[in-house]
Amino acid sequence: MKILHSRPTEDGFYMPAEFAEHEGCIMIFPHRRDSWQYGAYAARKAFVQVAEVIACSEKLTVCARYEDYDSARAMLPDHVRVIEMESDDAWARDVAPTFVINGKTIRGIDWGFNAWGGLHDGLYFPWDKDNKMARKLCDLLEADTYDQRDFILEGGSIHTDGEGTLLTTEACLLSKGRNPDFSKEEIEQRLKDCLGVKKIIWLPSGIYQDETNEHVDNICAFTAPAEVVLAWTDDENDPQYALSKSCLAVLERATDAKGRKLTVHKLPLPKPVTMTAEECEGLDWMDGQPTRIPNERLAASYVNFYISNRHVVCPQFGDDNDGKAIAILQALFPTRTVIGIEAREILIGGGNIHCITQQIPRRDLSCQQSM
Amino acid sequence: MKILHSRPTEDGFYMPAEFAEHEGCIMIFPHRRDSWQYGAYAARKAFVQVAEVIACSEKLTVCARYEDYDSARAMLPDHVRVIEMESDDAWARDVAPTFVINGKTIRGIDWGFNAWGGLHDGLYFPWDKDNKMARKLCDLLEADTYDQRDFILEGGSIHTDGEGTLLTTEACLLSKGRNPDFSKEEIEQRLKDCLGVKKIIWLPSGIYQDETNEHVDNICAFTAPAEVVLAWTDDENDPQYALSKSCLAVLERATDAKGRKLTVHKLPLPKPVTMTAEECEGLDWMDGQPTRIPNERLAASYVNFYISNRHVVCPQFGDDNDGKAIAILQALFPTRTVIGIEAREILIGGGNIHCITQQIPRRDLSCQQSM
Repeated sequence: MKILHSRPTEDGFYMPAEFAEHEGCIMIFPHRRDSWQYGAYAARKAFVQVAEVIACSEKLTVCARYEDYDSARAMLPDHVRVIEMESDDAWARDVAPTFVINGKTIRGIDWGFNAWGGLHDGLYFPWDKDNKMARKLCDLLEADTYDQRDFILEGGSIHTDGEGTLLTTEACLLSKGRNPDFSKEEIEQRLKDCLGVKKIIWLPSGIYQDETNEHVDNICAFTAPAEVVLAWTDDENDPQYALSKSCLAVLERATDAKGRKLTVHKLPLPKPVTMTAEECEGLDWMDGQPTRIPNERLAASYVNFYISNRHVVCPQFGDDNDGKAIAILQALFPTRTVIGIEAREILIGGGNIHCITQQIPRRDLSCQQSM
Repeated sequence: MKILHSRPTEDGFYMPAEFAEHEGCIMIFPHRRDSWQYGAYAARKAFVQVAEVIACSEKLTVCARYEDYDSARAMLPDHVRVIEMESDDAWARDVAPTFVINGKTIRGIDWGFNAWGGLHDGLYFPWDKDNKMARKLCDLLEADTYDQRDFILEGGSIHTDGEGTLLTTEACLLSKGRNPDFSKEEIEQRLKDCLGVKKIIWLPSGIYQDETNEHVDNICAFTAPAEVVLAWTDDENDPQYALSKSCLAVLERATDAKGRKLTVHKLPLPKPVTMTAEECEGLDWMDGQPTRIPNERLAASYVNFYISNRHVVCPQFGDDNDGKAIAILQALFPTRTVIGIEAREILIGGGNIHCITQQIPRRDLSCQQSM
């Protein structure tokens, strides 16, 4: 593996859309006792359910800590590869590389990772094991790696259409805990230099109480070129209403890199999902404080789905809107089967199915975007 | 990866000779401070020199502990893959899988490992990290694995010709610290069941003071079908003389699985190599005792070479016989270049170049042996 100090775009590389075909996928076996209730045993099961669906159509590699390898190997299907790798938590989306291709070769971008805000408003300390994973995953996969550790970025904060357009949120990318010395223009330039994009659509915000500083992948996602889903509520008294509405306003007047207007599909939110006292008792405290408190609202959203080659894996919350979300997504992904997975255990950790996965695009995809 | 409980031979698999073509090779980055003097910094350099030669013609994967990854990555060539894996020490030959093939598929045998003798006369405690490596390496390489953990065996204690013959030593395989409940016949049967061999040639002993209970790979190796090299001294006062002579007697009257007599090429030993006081001071103590003492004789032997696709990597000791050993091997391996590497730093750890490597045979080798 070569460690590269050039920029992917100048080398002819770009980030394909998630809905383009994948070579594989990366996940991490959960373990952190202040993230996952009661020692992560229930979270493991939910992760395995997600893994089973993804592994139907993609080569899946799951990273397990030394002490978790035996359990991961026992719980996961034979055709899933389990490899040993230390991690601080289990958010592959944010700590695995962002993969870029040029139609022949695949490379990984190794962004800086500081636990969603570092010493300013990060969620745990230290985060060194997470921050080292992207490079090691590139090494494992025999992909050269771009050293972008000077720039803090998580995979969950960006979505691309593979045709030159990137979706992100101002709440996250302009947060003080990430790249405070970069102007908005400098951040735009870095994204353009690294991801082969020409147009960045800045949504103002994400999901209410999303502790990632409102990652885009919990509120809005491309389902096809010029088509997006947006997490939505019609309840004007819900603090989420104003957030989703501000995003809708941006999306309705936006054009993508190819000058197209976007079609926005509203994906209803579940009713607010809150922590129970019993769940809180199953979480270790951190720095003298509980990590969750009873009745705390979690950032539940159906947008946090993963698009695999044959499926769309969508979180379910035991809510009346569970089926509606699946039906909307099924209409938007006619070549894939949408599978719902009960995801409360993943949500308690702070994210959802998209957050615990990272796709590895096919390296030989025809260059979809007009560069 | 499937964990298999059948036996390789019944499944049509066998262990090819080391001199057959390889897909790759496995090594481990050294770290143990009671094995490698002065924190293993010099040993690392010697390992890297070995790795550089092997990686000229084979896909090399080096296992590094979490804390060693950065150093291993920095020191090894770009085209060597570094992966994270915990280990107790750095002897890939003895802890990596023994690979078997059927002409299409490759699988790995996961033998039990107990640090060369377990609680009886093992060399360190605990050895659990080492014992878990073979299975994890199979997982990494996407090879199904045979669970043979009930049988203690190290790769360094066996050599095959790929045509049905296995070389081993009674000193090691019949030692009390390995499989004390197995008769010699039961051990023979297990080797036949696992490695696709029909004939086992039992050498009585190995190299004097070899703390592996005298692994065969330090005294005798196949260089071609029906041809072996044997570590040799003409000094009748050297305790090694009787050991080598007893092996020669066996080899001279042996026939292989195909009924052929063996041609024995004597490979001279270097003059006794002993520890210096300064080297001993650079080793951590273990269980209240020094791991080496000044003037202790080490088990130096030129037979401990590795056969890669294009090279034979042979230890050198700054001895008058260094060049002679290379010349003999060069004549025996006319299609490969023999490369000598100064190996004192590896020898201090207790083994040599063969011990720190494990070949991955080409899975599509034509089935060489008459089964």
